[in-house]
Amino acid sequence: MAEHTYKYIELVGSSKNSFEEAIQNAVNKAAQTVRNMRWFVVTEQRGYIENNAVAYYQVTIKIGFTLED
Amino acid sequence: MAEHTYKYIELVGSSKNSFEEAIQNAVNKAAQTVRNMRWFVVTEQRGYIENNAVAYYQVTIKIGFTLED
Amino acid sequence: MAEHTYKYIELVGSSKNSFEEAIQNAVNKAAQTVRNMRWFVVTEQRGYIENNAVAYYQVTIKIGFTLED
Amino acid sequence: MAEHTYKYIELVGSSKNSFEEAIQNAVNKAAQTVRNMRWFVVTEQRGYIENNAVAYYQVTIKIGFTLED
Amino acid sequence: MAEHTYKYIELVGSSKNSFEEAIQNAVNKAAQTVRNMRWFVVTEQRGYIENNAVAYYQVTIKIGFTLED
Amino acid sequence: MAEHTYKYIELVGSSKNSFEEAIQNAVNKAAQTVRNMRWFVVTEQRGYIENNAVAYYQVTIKIGFTLED
Amino acid sequence: MAEHTYKYIELVGSSKNSFEEAIQNAVNKAAQTVRNMRWFVVTEQRGYIENNAVAYYQVTIKIGFTLED
Amino acid sequence: MAEHTYKYIELVGSSKNSFEEAIQNAVNKAAQTVRNMRWFVVTEQRGYIENNAVAYYQVTIKIGFTLED
Amino acid sequence: MAEHTYKYIELVGSSKNSFEEAIQNAVNKAAQTVRNMRWFVVTEQRGYIENNAVAYYQVTIKIGFTLED
Amino acid sequence: MAEHTYKYIELVGSSKNSFEEAIQNAVNKAAQTVRNMRWFVVTEQRGYIENNAVAYYQVTIKIGFTLED
Amino acid sequence: MAEHTYKYIELVGSSKNSFEEAIQNAVNKAAQTVRNMRWFVVTEQRGYIENNAVAYYQVTIKIGFTLED
Amino acid sequence: MAEHTYKYIELVGSSKNSFEEAIQNAVNKAAQTVRNMRWFVVTEQRGYIENNAVAYYQVTIKIGFTLED
Repeated sequence: MAEHTYKYIELVGSSKNSFEEAIQNAVNKAAQTVRNMRWFVVTEQRGYIENNAVAYYQVTIKIGFTLED
Repeated sequence: MAEHTYKYIELVGSSKNSFEEAIQNAVNKAAQTVRNMRWFVVTEQRGYIENNAVAYYQVTIKIGFTLED
Repeated sequence: MAEHTYKYIELVGSSKNSFEEAIQNAVNKAAQTVRNMRWFVVTEQRGYIENNAVAYYQVTIKIGFTLED
Repeated sequence: MAEHTYKYIELVGSSKNSFEEAIQNAVNKAAQTVRNMRWFVVTEQRGYIENNAVAYYQVTIKIGFTLED
Repeated sequence: MAEHTYKYIELVGSSKNSFEEAIQNAVNKAAQTVRNMRWFVVTEQRGYIENNAVAYYQVTIKIGFTLED
Repeated sequence: MAEHTYKYIELVGSSKNSFEEAIQNAVNKAAQTVRNMRWFVVTEQRGYIENNAVAYYQVTIKIGFTLED
Repeated sequence: MAEHTYKYIELVGSSKNSFEEAIQNAVNKAAQTVRNMRWFVVTEQRGYIENNAVAYYQVTIKIGFTLED
Repeated sequence: MAEHTYKYIELVGSSKNSFEEAIQNAVNKAAQTVRNMRWFVVTEQRGYIENNAVAYYQVTIKIGFTLED
Repeated sequence: MAEHTYKYIELVGSSKNSFEEAIQNAVNKAAQTVRNMRWFVVTEQRGYIENNAVAYYQVTIKIGFTLED
Repeated sequence: MAEHTYKYIELVGSSKNSFEEAIQNAVNKAAQTVRNMRWFVVTEQRGYIENNAVAYYQVTIKIGFTLED
Repeated sequence: MAEHTYKYIELVGSSKNSFEEAIQNAVNKAAQTVRNMRWFVVTEQRGYIENNAVAYYQVTIKIGFTLED
Repeated sequence: MAEHTYKYIELVGSSKNSFEEAIQNAVNKAAQTVRNMRWFVVTEQRGYIENNAVAYYQVTIKIGFTLED
């Protein structure tokens, strides 16, 4: 391990089923443009309610990835 | 969309199975007396332990609903 | 109920599947050395990403247990 | 001044023009059902963006009012 | 213990003597309209000063009570 | 509404006149490079003082926008 | 720019019209006794309600000023 | 009530007996040099332990007082 | 005073009478197993309500003690 | 000084020697792709431990830079 | 040790070299007008960037000092 | 990497010279009784002042270590 520098991006993922799936959806989306993702931190959990039921779970995460040399 | 005013109520839902189900239980309960629920925000996650195992997941949420004209 | 004193320990549980399982894993581990666990509070949720996917969910919890007389 | 008890309600007001007007709108709405309002505290400021411009300012406030004897 | 849902209300109690009495005053007031109160959490402690002395202690608490089935 | 993923960027807008105008300036600037902006959250309010008067209002906001498929 | 030391003072300004004017009022008041004010940070926004309307906007700010050599 | 400006000072009071007395001690001390004190906010509660017992309760408070015209 | 290292433990004390007594109870309990306790910091204040009255005051404290050489 | 808009990026720098060097490493890395950097804010300080010693200091910083016209 | 009252002042120190030196500079400056300084608490760490390098480290500290009888 | 559980302990290290050395001192002390230390998080930075100069830097850290199977 060297003296790496990492960058954070902050995303909001959503899912009809669970907070975990909402995170996975956000990571999948980020993977289209970001390489070397290493970890995430949850910063907020929310959701939408429609017809008296939870329609979407939403998780805000900060994803840390290594800046390449 | 007009210049709506929303109100928050804060509830604690509990479930033997998951945080998501605890939220759904709280939303179901609120639906007995509140209309026009729109979104929720998670403000705390706790749980009870019995016999060395998680007995209940507890989620505190604030539910936002539209105040009707 | 008497005037009990409780103690907190802070653990980080991890799971490949869900935050709930990460909590259960931490509680199971604590049960090897701690008795009279009563409740937990979630203080942080993180995770590791490998190959563009969530590899581990991590939950930091504080576990409260009764100090025996 | 006696030993009063106050209650908080939490509302989200919105306005096309300013945070101040969003607060006034929330106070006006609350006045339809609440008496003896005394003060408010701002807990969050957000807004909606439509067509690259601010469409609505939103202010979450807690309103304190005296509980009558 | 079943899968209960609890609701929070937020009150500000005041007392000329102590923070504890300010909490008791708020709980007494709430008891006029709320049943099944179970616990409280202190969220702020303030007070008024008159003639260079503390005139009132004020405690903001959130009270949790069980929503009946 | 589908299972969208949103991204946050964090900007500091400034204005000689008001916090609202500072936000609008930041949104206008972001519009030069970002599409599908949906909402903002205020995270800090500051300002510069020159000659004993407020010279600039500064608002830090996080802007959420939809990541396109 | 040298290795300056700055001092913070914390004030609460009030205005019948806006948060910006409340800040200006506090800065004007501070200018009677403090020199070299450079910036401010908003730490709280509150207000008083009279007759179901906002009577005063109140802003708590920390003002930073240069300590002269 | 006019458009007053208030100033905060932050003090730490201590007492062998209670948090309330620690606050009173701080207010008494402040009264030697400050006029027009109006309210206080508790920002921290600590204490010293000597010989396995609480020796001093310490309360950090911010005291707000009116700046005279 | 040398370059000491201190350790924190986190306890929840309870009392039927006051927050101060709840702290003393926790310190007394800790004294059964910990030496060289030096200070405490209050991190949370809660309580239980039974029959519309406060049954127990609960204070969470972190206790700092010197690690001996 | 005009009505500038600034953007924040959030980075994690690491160093075997000090927090200051970790910040410098992050700033150096950012300089490869970002112009007009003006200030930074520390948001978290962590580190890795290997063989009972600090192996790396890690500092999370938000860097503010001017968006050019 | 008696029942002392302490006062906090909040300063921002700056240094070209390190956070520690920035703190020392602030303490030195405060020593010109304040006596009986006892401890400090770091409340924020920032810095200025010039020409892609850290030009100044800035530390905001609250300094506690004993109010003399 | 398996589904490890980690435990946090919270220590306060002190040093006459720097925050980094204060951390190292705390880690060295912990190494006398704890194995498998992996990382630390800074939760507070303070210090003592004697004779108008910084006498000790103090850093509170949480150290995470792997609980062995």
